[in-house]
Amino acid sequence: MSLIVQKFGGTSVANAERVMNVAKIVTDTFAQGNDVVVVVSAQGDFTDVLVDKQMEINPKASRREQDMLLAAGEQISIALLAMAIEKLGYHAVSLLGWQAGFETSSSHTSARIKRVDPSRIREALDRRNIVVVAGFQGLSRYGDITTLGRGGSDTSAVAIAAAMHADLCQIYTDVEGVFTADPRKVENAKKLDEISYDEMLELATLGAQVLNNRSVEMAKKYNIELEVLSSLTRAKGTIVKEKSKMEKMLISGVAKDTDIARISVTGVPNNPGIAFKMFSKLSKKDINVDIILQSIGHDGKKDISFTVAKSRGQEAVDALKDYMESHGASGIQLDENVAKISIVGAGMESHAGVATKMFEALYDAQINIQMISTSEIKVSVLIDAVDADKAVKAIHAKFFD
Amino acid sequence: MSLIVQKFGGTSVANAERVMNVAKIVTDTFAQGNDVVVVVSAQGDFTDVLVDKQMEINPKASRREQDMLLAAGEQISIALLAMAIEKLGYHAVSLLGWQAGFETSSSHTSARIKRVDPSRIREALDRRNIVVVAGFQGLSRYGDITTLGRGGSDTSAVAIAAAMHADLCQIYTDVEGVFTADPRKVENAKKLDEISYDEMLELATLGAQVLNNRSVEMAKKYNIELEVLSSLTRAKGTIVKEKSKMEKMLISGVAKDTDIARISVTGVPNNPGIAFKMFSKLSKKDINVDIILQSIGHDGKKDISFTVAKSRGQEAVDALKDYMESHGASGIQLDENVAKISIVGAGMESHAGVATKMFEALYDAQINIQMISTSEIKVSVLIDAVDADKAVKAIHAKFFD
Repeated sequence: MSLIVQKFGGTSVANAERVMNVAKIVTDTFAQGNDVVVVVSAQGDFTDVLVDKQMEINPKASRREQDMLLAAGEQISIALLAMAIEKLGYHAVSLLGWQAGFETSSSHTSARIKRVDPSRIREALDRRNIVVVAGFQGLSRYGDITTLGRGGSDTSAVAIAAAMHADLCQIYTDVEGVFTADPRKVENAKKLDEISYDEMLELATLGAQVLNNRSVEMAKKYNIELEVLSSLTRAKGTIVKEKSKMEKMLISGVAKDTDIARISVTGVPNNPGIAFKMFSKLSKKDINVDIILQSIGHDGKKDISFTVAKSRGQEAVDALKDYMESHGASGIQLDENVAKISIVGAGMESHAGVATKMFEALYDAQINIQMISTSEIKVSVLIDAVDADKAVKAIHAKFFD
Repeated sequence: MSLIVQKFGGTSVANAERVMNVAKIVTDTFAQGNDVVVVVSAQGDFTDVLVDKQMEINPKASRREQDMLLAAGEQISIALLAMAIEKLGYHAVSLLGWQAGFETSSSHTSARIKRVDPSRIREALDRRNIVVVAGFQGLSRYGDITTLGRGGSDTSAVAIAAAMHADLCQIYTDVEGVFTADPRKVENAKKLDEISYDEMLELATLGAQVLNNRSVEMAKKYNIELEVLSSLTRAKGTIVKEKSKMEKMLISGVAKDTDIARISVTGVPNNPGIAFKMFSKLSKKDINVDIILQSIGHDGKKDISFTVAKSRGQEAVDALKDYMESHGASGIQLDENVAKISIVGAGMESHAGVATKMFEALYDAQINIQMISTSEIKVSVLIDAVDADKAVKAIHAKFFD
């Protein structure tokens, strides 16, 4: 008998029919002799419904009250899923984050899990219940409801799997697993059987958006085997673990991120410290900078370009404009029509020429590269947003066809 | 400085505009120097939305999961009201039933409050917060979310008022107070300034439906002064307390209840014990019997008539039919087209002729009386449902015009 944690996202429980479908998956797993803990998110667009209600009343409401509001979403979905499981003739117990033992930091709307005390889950399992846990939420040490922020339900599932030494943590989504590229865009995209934590982390960061990064980091830390799979097709998914056999492959995937903007500061005086001051202004505002490119200075001037999340682009410009111009920079531009294309693969560490092969694919497709960034297991390039899909296809074809 | 508990029902917080209206009332009360604890129900029809979701999945879901589902309703409304209070520049803290210290029995969907530990409410008040508490819900000793059943939010408010020795408990509704008759039906209906707990209890039982009975019983037990008033007009409402000056009035109101059915069992053999056995069959099924009328026996036979809630009428007939007929009764009839009209007033204890005056009003209006029931402070009659509104008007005119 194994202990299996299964996580279902909002689209998987969006309506009564889908809730029943999830109940079928869960009870089948239970009927095969496993202990099952299910983690669910709020139904489909219900979180948006709640946010709309808030916006009508007070867009600047305290984060504590935002958490109180949003946590109602999972409360509804766990009750409905437990009812669906009962309908199929099994015993179910739904538990809210605090009932399931989730103790978090008190940073509302983006709390971090500090500890999971799974004693109540364990007790309910011992009485042969299927346990349905509200993802995304917990309780601070002040006894306040908290939420974990974006993708938090994945993290909830992995945290339970870690605390209870589960044999497997299955993350059910609307795709069949991790692909070598977005299968909706690239015809020959292949589903991977396995991928390593590190590759998955790079892919998630780079916009593949299959798994939340915090959950992969936690799975890596506690060595929890993850499976990413579809709640609709019931096909075998992709296993995420420490070392994957995929490492023999040169790269494991091509990812696209169009949610970024490029900022260029031109004519920056070539004085020591000016770049440091510039980026410290951004970090004070909690704006993450990704790729940075600095031109070779001439005439005592240089250009500095960098990328930030698109939603923070204008804020970054506002934070820098006066300071940079008063220190002699000639201008600052924001370009939101850019995309970052990346290849990821543990294999590239030991294989030369991977970046070259990527650049060749882009050259063949007549796509101009604006910026380049590399790490041990990835190469990213910044290009025009309009070329993004064409670029992914060209690179994917070069490596996988 | 006083401690005031204010309770707002679902219609008072049905949409953003109404939530802001409630926030205005609450903050005005706070700005006058009072400590304020607000109890709210789920928004408008939201409970129905949740019940519909359940019905689609599993109409026979366990009561525990029903409570988990429904309790999400108040969670949403307390967060929204707290946000609205923040919007007006005040500090607010919302608390779920369990956070506010509501310990209940574990009879899900109709739990009883066992204890309220208001320490967390007190703490939040001490830090100059307006405290917004989820009505209708609590926590069982097994750590499960419970709900109090119908009208539970009134009871929640009175329980907090009792536990905290509040100076006043205001129940905001969509009417301006307690009237001598339904003001939508009777033109000359008068708003009462005061009414006693006992009169209020009789009126609530008799279908006036202004206040939930459990809440009035609790207010009487702990001697909590209640005020029933409208969240829309801000006019002075009706005070409910131990002894009201209304007692000088002959009667305090005329109430109508059309949610009843009459069952008649004819030709019952005149044997001792048969009536006892008949009603014990009903009480085993938890069917409450109201007015009972037994004809004087002749030829060793008698007729027994009684009233039950309309929703239980057929069930009551089914429970009795075989038994009664096998014991010699000649038939059993169900009549759902009846109404109970009642007059209530502490004054009638010391005034003779009150019932006579009522019967006279009905005679003048040519309305036939089917059954009569009396207590110390009320007289009820059963009549044809079609005559109900005419009867209320006639009786009201007789006593109040």
